[in-house]
Amino acid sequence: MSDVVRIVVDGMGGDNAPSEIVKGAVAAVKDHDEIQILLTGYQDVLKKELEQYTYPKDRIQVIHTSQVIETAEPPVAAIRTKKDSSIVAGLMMVRRGEADAFVSAGSTGAVLVGAQAIVGRIKGIERPALAPLIPTKEGVTLLIDCGANVDARSSHLVQFAKMGSVYMENVIGVKRPKVGIVNIGAEEEKGNALVKETFPLLKECKDLNFIGSVEARDIPEGVCDVVVCEAFVGNVILKLYEGVAAALISKIKGSMLESFRSKIGALLVKPALKRTLKKFDVSEHGGAPLLGLKGLVVKTHGSSTAKEVENSIYQCVQFKKQNINEKIMEHIQV
Amino acid sequence: MSDVVRIVVDGMGGDNAPSEIVKGAVAAVKDHDEIQILLTGYQDVLKKELEQYTYPKDRIQVIHTSQVIETAEPPVAAIRTKKDSSIVAGLMMVRRGEADAFVSAGSTGAVLVGAQAIVGRIKGIERPALAPLIPTKEGVTLLIDCGANVDARSSHLVQFAKMGSVYMENVIGVKRPKVGIVNIGAEEEKGNALVKETFPLLKECKDLNFIGSVEARDIPEGVCDVVVCEAFVGNVILKLYEGVAAALISKIKGSMLESFRSKIGALLVKPALKRTLKKFDVSEHGGAPLLGLKGLVVKTHGSSTAKEVENSIYQCVQFKKQNINEKIMEHIQV
Repeated sequence: MSDVVRIVVDGMGGDNAPSEIVKGAVAAVKDHDEIQILLTGYQDVLKKELEQYTYPKDRIQVIHTSQVIETAEPPVAAIRTKKDSSIVAGLMMVRRGEADAFVSAGSTGAVLVGAQAIVGRIKGIERPALAPLIPTKEGVTLLIDCGANVDARSSHLVQFAKMGSVYMENVIGVKRPKVGIVNIGAEEEKGNALVKETFPLLKECKDLNFIGSVEARDIPEGVCDVVVCEAFVGNVILKLYEGVAAALISKIKGSMLESFRSKIGALLVKPALKRTLKKFDVSEHGGAPLLGLKGLVVKTHGSSTAKEVENSIYQCVQFKKQNINEKIMEHIQV
Repeated sequence: MSDVVRIVVDGMGGDNAPSEIVKGAVAAVKDHDEIQILLTGYQDVLKKELEQYTYPKDRIQVIHTSQVIETAEPPVAAIRTKKDSSIVAGLMMVRRGEADAFVSAGSTGAVLVGAQAIVGRIKGIERPALAPLIPTKEGVTLLIDCGANVDARSSHLVQFAKMGSVYMENVIGVKRPKVGIVNIGAEEEKGNALVKETFPLLKECKDLNFIGSVEARDIPEGVCDVVVCEAFVGNVILKLYEGVAAALISKIKGSMLESFRSKIGALLVKPALKRTLKKFDVSEHGGAPLLGLKGLVVKTHGSSTAKEVENSIYQCVQFKKQNINEKIMEHIQV
């Protein structure tokens, strides 16, 4: 039984809850024997959803909570007052060691605030970091930090680099991940005060494969596996990625409907195009882990489908099996 | 003769110099009677290029310089030592009032450093800002600042907003331009220290149509006409815009060659697709003005073609005719 991975899934979080969340959880337990799911939320609603499926009943347990945190609620107040919400209850189970990980498609703010306050940081970690995988021409890159803690210091960024490197190597399977710092030029002397201060510190880290500055233009090319930046810049990168791709795709679709000729062409290229765009969809690569906590917390998109929930659950399994937190601790002690 | 606009064009700057630069200058004088071009660089090279064209000879004058600043040269040293370069000579002419504007596709660093050191700031302007136009679903948006001066203060950002607003209203012709500040959430209380400090200052500006925070995701949607941010973030936005679009387009092109079916489709959609992608190309919208200087300096892409050079020259004409600097001064005194 020691190999069982217990994952709490927020049954009420996200635009497609509870249907897609439950569907994803069911798919995960059917596919992986070692997964035990704890589903938090309104039990009548969740049980009704579960009734639609055949699955090993003993591997999904509903944990009833009487409250739900809405996306628009101010996070700090929500975490403080809604003790019996699907988010707080889930995080509490991770804190008490009753679960290894928590996955939520709910309020990003509440998950980030709650995770730090309830689960707590690994000893030695100054600040946890939200690290989504973003698509590139070559595959995926970990963007760390995109979280809610802005105005970072250089020591935070060094820890982000180490945690990101451990994650990419052990969860995604990239050997000696290339680590770059987001900068406005390739030279070491370029950058703002934070980057200039962080650059030499990263260079000194013998446990990192630090390749230097990376310009934003080159991120989609996949020039490195771990892209380090402070949260404000990370947030801009993540959201602009989505925004530019969405605007461009909408423009392209529009252009294909311009004439009869292009409409016929569109029909013919559609299947190939769809596959490509899917690979370039930020939401296709599972949720974003919040690294540096005593347990694992994964934030998936608000618009998560069953597939993304399922992928996020597998991420948690890999995280646990590979002892990521133990490995992070080793690197932090260095 | 008072209506003549005298523009110095760096004949040696950029990947396609001198041929595309000269071609663009010739097209501009042929199309607009009031333009007088002063072309700086090696006179034998430039004159040979000019010989290929028929154009009103008295409207393009070659100003011989014996030096050229290369892109890789450290900007400060280059400006200091290469006094007889096409960039320094051009900027000196603007400083002495012999020209109204300077256009260069050469070293961004050298142009930015040189412009500030040689042309100088408008009285009251704390810092000039580089402000490219970026494509959106709706048209174009001015992104200010993308320059080389990082770690800005809130008072700088307020001036950027005012200068950007004047530019969009008078050069691009947008009535009451909507001004937004780049932020990591829509609410006023979100953001890093700089944004939190700047937000209330922008709200107080009665001469601005300030719409509040804009998330990076919404910039390509065209939600505002002037996007205000400090240079590091602006640089990331500008370069990621180019990077995501380029990676996505390359992926799409690749996908269309996957099968016979999609290849036929690709042939049919190609013309429509090409038009769309052109509209979404950052380089299609002329150069980036460096606002806040006593004269106008426009930096065009290193890869500028004749069309972009020509468009940049027209930008200068509009800038002069609309008395942009006088208007900026009015707003700064407020």
